[in-house]
Amino acid sequence: MQERVGIIDLGSNTTRLVVIGYTPHHSFKLLDEVRETVRLAEGIGEDGQLQPGPMQRGVVAMKMFHSFCKSTGVTRIVPVATSAVRDATNQAEFLTRVVRESGLKLRVLSTEEEGYYGYLGAINALGLSDGFLIDIGGGSAEVTAIRGRGFVRSFSRPAGVVRFSERYVRSDPISNRDFKALQEAAAATFTEVGWFRDTSGTTLAGIGGTIRTLAEIDQKTRGYPLDRVHGHSFSRARLDETIDMLRGMTLRQREEVPGLSRDRADLILAGAVILQQLMEIGRFAEITVSGQGLREGLFYEQFVVGENPPLFSDMRGFSVQNLARIYNYEAIHSAKVRDLALSLFDQLRPLHGYNEWERELLGYAAMLHDIGVAVGYYDHHKHGAYLVINSALQGFSHREIVMLALLVRYHRKGDVSADEYRAVLNPSDTERVARLAALLRVAEYLERSKSQVVQGLHVELGDPIRVVTRVVGDATVEIWDANRRTGLFQKAFGKAIEIV
Amino acid sequence: MQERVGIIDLGSNTTRLVVIGYTPHHSFKLLDEVRETVRLAEGIGEDGQLQPGPMQRGVVAMKMFHSFCKSTGVTRIVPVATSAVRDATNQAEFLTRVVRESGLKLRVLSTEEEGYYGYLGAINALGLSDGFLIDIGGGSAEVTAIRGRGFVRSFSRPAGVVRFSERYVRSDPISNRDFKALQEAAAATFTEVGWFRDTSGTTLAGIGGTIRTLAEIDQKTRGYPLDRVHGHSFSRARLDETIDMLRGMTLRQREEVPGLSRDRADLILAGAVILQQLMEIGRFAEITVSGQGLREGLFYEQFVVGENPPLFSDMRGFSVQNLARIYNYEAIHSAKVRDLALSLFDQLRPLHGYNEWERELLGYAAMLHDIGVAVGYYDHHKHGAYLVINSALQGFSHREIVMLALLVRYHRKGDVSADEYRAVLNPSDTERVARLAALLRVAEYLERSKSQVVQGLHVELGDPIRVVTRVVGDATVEIWDANRRTGLFQKAFGKAIEIV
Repeated sequence: MQERVGIIDLGSNTTRLVVIGYTPHHSFKLLDEVRETVRLAEGIGEDGQLQPGPMQRGVVAMKMFHSFCKSTGVTRIVPVATSAVRDATNQAEFLTRVVRESGLKLRVLSTEEEGYYGYLGAINALGLSDGFLIDIGGGSAEVTAIRGRGFVRSFSRPAGVVRFSERYVRSDPISNRDFKALQEAAAATFTEVGWFRDTSGTTLAGIGGTIRTLAEIDQKTRGYPLDRVHGHSFSRARLDETIDMLRGMTLRQREEVPGLSRDRADLILAGAVILQQLMEIGRFAEITVSGQGLREGLFYEQFVVGENPPLFSDMRGFSVQNLARIYNYEAIHSAKVRDLALSLFDQLRPLHGYNEWERELLGYAAMLHDIGVAVGYYDHHKHGAYLVINSALQGFSHREIVMLALLVRYHRKGDVSADEYRAVLNPSDTERVARLAALLRVAEYLERSKSQVVQGLHVELGDPIRVVTRVVGDATVEIWDANRRTGLFQKAFGKAIEIV
Repeated sequence: MQERVGIIDLGSNTTRLVVIGYTPHHSFKLLDEVRETVRLAEGIGEDGQLQPGPMQRGVVAMKMFHSFCKSTGVTRIVPVATSAVRDATNQAEFLTRVVRESGLKLRVLSTEEEGYYGYLGAINALGLSDGFLIDIGGGSAEVTAIRGRGFVRSFSRPAGVVRFSERYVRSDPISNRDFKALQEAAAATFTEVGWFRDTSGTTLAGIGGTIRTLAEIDQKTRGYPLDRVHGHSFSRARLDETIDMLRGMTLRQREEVPGLSRDRADLILAGAVILQQLMEIGRFAEITVSGQGLREGLFYEQFVVGENPPLFSDMRGFSVQNLARIYNYEAIHSAKVRDLALSLFDQLRPLHGYNEWERELLGYAAMLHDIGVAVGYYDHHKHGAYLVINSALQGFSHREIVMLALLVRYHRKGDVSADEYRAVLNPSDTERVARLAALLRVAEYLERSKSQVVQGLHVELGDPIRVVTRVVGDATVEIWDANRRTGLFQKAFGKAIEIV
């Protein structure tokens, strides 16, 4: 990684610094994150003034972030502020103090800019093409309309979790009257926006801490098998259940809710209700969470060059390659394994009947199959699966990520077992993974010496199936080994295979 | 990694190529391993001749290994052969064929050299200081005596698993008469050696595939929580149980034994009995397995410079630093966290009463606490624990490795839970880890901005305990954050702590 950029986002509730290391046009990786709960919007009254305590907390956090950047080799800092500072009547006073005491010159994002960068971050990380993006912050909620991956328009309403909590969550647990007032205020926020009605057939995605937290609560309360929020979807019905649970609880009880961090326990109910009303008015049955938003959008503006807007033209392909590069994969060997596996896939279509989707996953798995060596050579198939499951792969559903991880897990040996991930997979996926892994395994052993001695192959569909290899040099060991690893193929396809 | 060395070891049963990447005097890492079961000693009769089939398999494997090295950027190849080639009456013919057909010039190790390199590999990876080292190969068994980490002497006997299996494991399952003959032959092998008797108070360690496999069977048949053979110990009683199980089984049944790979199923019984008789005659109650041996010894001869014999002077310290370097740890930040944690440890001695052992582990954990960032920033405490558990850390017991992993796991947040590893830990270790993790956590948050603003600290043992920091610059956030993370300290020590 040649460069390090520090992106600072000073919001109404929290402020974060993320440090991203990158090599331009090549690869990037999140290296550090520091989060402080500054509650900058706390106590803002009718006069719209930031209060002395919150301002002091904001200044101290900015000083700390700046010295963090200086100590950790950050070469460029991008510090931005959002609604709390944008709307403050004493904005100038605050910005001057921040410059003077921390040395950071905050760029105050307009509503449109904030929506745009959130959109850039989310669209570069999710498969979303047409739909809406929601971000519920401390001071406001932003909704952005997206069509064909393009930014259409956005609106911002002062429905933030700090503001709404102060106004409506005044008893503990919340009284029925306050709860009703909260719901009504949230609903009113969105009914006011004339164009936000026609959402049929589109998708809803969410960014920001409030929605991430709601996703974590959903996962933790139902024993979800992945520890991963990005790409997670939950239904309106599940959200309603979460709200029913939270509204009956005292603050102290909420602090014990799995997935809910202590410093959000007081704000989460307002956040959940704001989302509920948005889903109600927009008639969304489900929301998908993006772990990436504003901060990543500010990064992608620098990183994705030659595209306008700066969106990855092949997000999934880039993301797989980025992961492979981070772990120093062997490009030539991996590409040859991929080519052999895809050649088997194509020629065996009459047998499996799979489509482009499976083919794409098989190709990606081949590129990633050896990344676990970065952890340790022994058991590198298990380490590789761990890395895929815990990676920042973008543009894939959780089901796809689990399938990729299982293909990596079984590229060398073992019978496919996917029980652990039942909650994420479809019933037919165990067979699907077993079949694709069988192809990957034959391809891997045909590249045993990593020397590309097996250049290509031709499949003769008989019984047994014969794979005739095209060889340059001596492939005795490859062919012998590949024949020893056909057990999974035989189990998965119910047919013998012979490699010659 | 600047260099890549390929080490090839052509044995009687298997041959392996390991590729190790390294930066001289700095760090190293196993990058690749290829293993072929060539059974070179198969069918050797009274005339001591390698047979045509096995020779052909040996030559083909050497060709494959050589092209593997060429394709994967190996800059130097160290190819050696052991007992099968050493003892072959047609050795010259075989070596000539290998050179001509594969281009590799095998160095035939003498018994002494083989013992020496095995010793180098094992002693550089285990805590063993005085005792014996056993390696049971395909054609022979070598025993080396070690005193004060020094090589004293070794002997080699033709008690190899291929030879003994061919001679004694002739019925399926083995007949009682053959089993008895096998035991007697194994015993006779070792009683012949006059000096191998006085083993009292010393340790037995083992290297090579036979003993690794016996360790894996032990682990798999009792649900051991770690997937790690190096450093594993098992008792003579457990070995006897394993032998009782194996001797009643047919070959096909043995192939299904967890931990036993298919291509060792026919040889393992002979190997287990050879080890049993060695333990009987040497009166060893337990054996500790080294995952490193001959091949690693050949590597260390190059890597460890300035020491004679080439042994790490501080194996544990080097190994921790090697791991930290592989994952590009932040040296200055980690060292400061270590210094602060150790300063807390030292000044709180009246409270915990721990010794140098705990102090050493705490220091190592501090060096490793952030390595999980290499996998992903989010949950890097969990990733770091995974990396430690799956690392090649040398010179540590499994108990110590688990403790290091748990310290990394809990360096940021969470209440310590060690249930998963009960089988490896002592009952008091949960408290021990909680207390050490509490110190590490306070130190980590005093280094929140990674800027060394907290230079040192002084502990006042009162109620609450006061930690007075010595600060350069502004440590507002550090002190505020550290005070927020004292919950674990309070739980683990039963005392409040206040940082000022």
